[in-house]
Amino acid sequence: MSKREGSGEDRLIARHFRPLAKHPGALGLADDAAVLTPPPGCDLVLTTDGIIAGVHVFPDAPADAIARRALRVNLSDLAAKGAKPAGFLLAVALPAGTTDEWLAAFARGLSEDAEQYGCPLLGGDTDHTPGPLSVSITAFGTLPAGTMVRRKGARPGDVLFATGTVGDAALGLMLRKDARAGASLTSAQRDHLLTRYLQPQPRNTLAETVRSHASAALDISDGLVGDLAKLCRASGVTANIEAARVPLSDAARALITGQAALLERALTGGDDYEILAAVPAGKVEAFCADARAAGVAVTDIGRLVAGEVPPQFIGPDRRPLAFERTSYSHF
Amino acid sequence: MSKREGSGEDRLIARHFRPLAKHPGALGLADDAAVLTPPPGCDLVLTTDGIIAGVHVFPDAPADAIARRALRVNLSDLAAKGAKPAGFLLAVALPAGTTDEWLAAFARGLSEDAEQYGCPLLGGDTDHTPGPLSVSITAFGTLPAGTMVRRKGARPGDVLFATGTVGDAALGLMLRKDARAGASLTSAQRDHLLTRYLQPQPRNTLAETVRSHASAALDISDGLVGDLAKLCRASGVTANIEAARVPLSDAARALITGQAALLERALTGGDDYEILAAVPAGKVEAFCADARAAGVAVTDIGRLVAGEVPPQFIGPDRRPLAFERTSYSHF
Repeated sequence: MSKREGSGEDRLIARHFRPLAKHPGALGLADDAAVLTPPPGCDLVLTTDGIIAGVHVFPDAPADAIARRALRVNLSDLAAKGAKPAGFLLAVALPAGTTDEWLAAFARGLSEDAEQYGCPLLGGDTDHTPGPLSVSITAFGTLPAGTMVRRKGARPGDVLFATGTVGDAALGLMLRKDARAGASLTSAQRDHLLTRYLQPQPRNTLAETVRSHASAALDISDGLVGDLAKLCRASGVTANIEAARVPLSDAARALITGQAALLERALTGGDDYEILAAVPAGKVEAFCADARAAGVAVTDIGRLVAGEVPPQFIGPDRRPLAFERTSYSHF
Repeated sequence: MSKREGSGEDRLIARHFRPLAKHPGALGLADDAAVLTPPPGCDLVLTTDGIIAGVHVFPDAPADAIARRALRVNLSDLAAKGAKPAGFLLAVALPAGTTDEWLAAFARGLSEDAEQYGCPLLGGDTDHTPGPLSVSITAFGTLPAGTMVRRKGARPGDVLFATGTVGDAALGLMLRKDARAGASLTSAQRDHLLTRYLQPQPRNTLAETVRSHASAALDISDGLVGDLAKLCRASGVTANIEAARVPLSDAARALITGQAALLERALTGGDDYEILAAVPAGKVEAFCADARAAGVAVTDIGRLVAGEVPPQFIGPDRRPLAFERTSYSHF
């Protein structure tokens, strides 16, 4: 028998990921599967979303930021569906030359977010790859059976709410690619947009509010215009949204004021990780009060109306905006 | 608003994967998450395992075989843990130039196996990648709360059983790399080994038997020697196994008879996807009867004994075999 105790993968997992496996169902990452005991009467909400270096993030992004983004894009889905995080599985494919320092930073980012969002590591799969770094996370949430908030379910008359501000990440990405694009901004404004791009802030504190009051919801990950179209299509409704009502940050507003064409980028660019929720008129007051209590800004951006045509955004001249593309797609 | 309805990803999913989403919790793959309602009193068993072209499979392997392997390696984990399949999530990263025909074959393989093993597609994530094809599956199983079979839990005196035959896949891989290595075999023997390599046969029909009678178990995915060492380490026991008792197929036996050094490859090579189970002496009879009823061959390969040293395999000369490496690792 060889003297080697365990493989390289075992050692890597033991050093970097086992310290994160505090949930009893993770079994210390020392078994072939994890166990989750769902609370009685609850459904499990399942979501999976991945990151590939060079596709979803810059290959030289900090390791801890990559880890956080990979977890947060999944947490954002749980939040929009009204679910409470229960844990996650991590599948990571590491390119040759991945250093111990990189892994330590990656694990640190993951660990801090797992703690902050109450979403512990349950298990995973680690491989080496001849391709780019890939991080695929599957996250689990729980909610009372039958109460998951769908894209479907919104009705004419429901009020549309967006959390936070829209378009920052897309504009931040533009600055990340070409710093000159932000020449007219203060450094605080530039930092705001770059941070919003680099580090999504999923709205998990709003999950219970969404679950209690929304008729339909999804997270804005592919751009407000495209994601609203998805909600409308699934619900069989439409909307006429005044673009001026869409919540923008000071920084985004400053950029768009200087260059009106950037409004399209803000409305159709991805990576917002805000929540778009339809709320029946009778529940709007409670929704707003609960959102305030949760510390999440929500903005009424318009009402859903009957109709099967795609939703429209109305510009300052009262005419519908025409977008070159409505949604972000890697394809 | 653009005339494009949905993105390339949406169209790809609609065409190839939506037909697989028959489970109500998949929501027709038309939402951001899936829903699973666990049976009352049940735990959920979670496992994730991935395949990267060029690492785990030959890049030119048939698309349907890649799909089946990706699902089956996860099904094998569920079987060894005693869990009944409940569904899976699929994360796939496609290299440029992936054709519609390839995707159709991939989806067909996945669909047939999902049907055969009762493990429906619940959701997923599709991306393009500049790297090689990557398929990461997260599978879910259910079992009565608290009954998952662990690596840990075996006791001295327990009898070790292996299902099916060991080493075929590793020898099949050898033939796949160098056809001359199989020159001494009949064509039926060669086909047997190559098929065993290409297409794992997870032992899901044995899951309930394992759950009812085994004190510890895992699937043999990294080689019998290494996986037995994991079970022993986790359970705090050891074993002295006569190599002659390890079940071999006719084809494997023929190869090893001609070249004794291949015994090491058979015992330490990966991809068997058989189950290694420890069964308390008092339950052996019931275990064997249930296995027979399930149509799965099981072989008593020896007994666990007290001790913390790594398990040993005893050769024909009654001396312990010394292996160059004890387990397969991609690292």
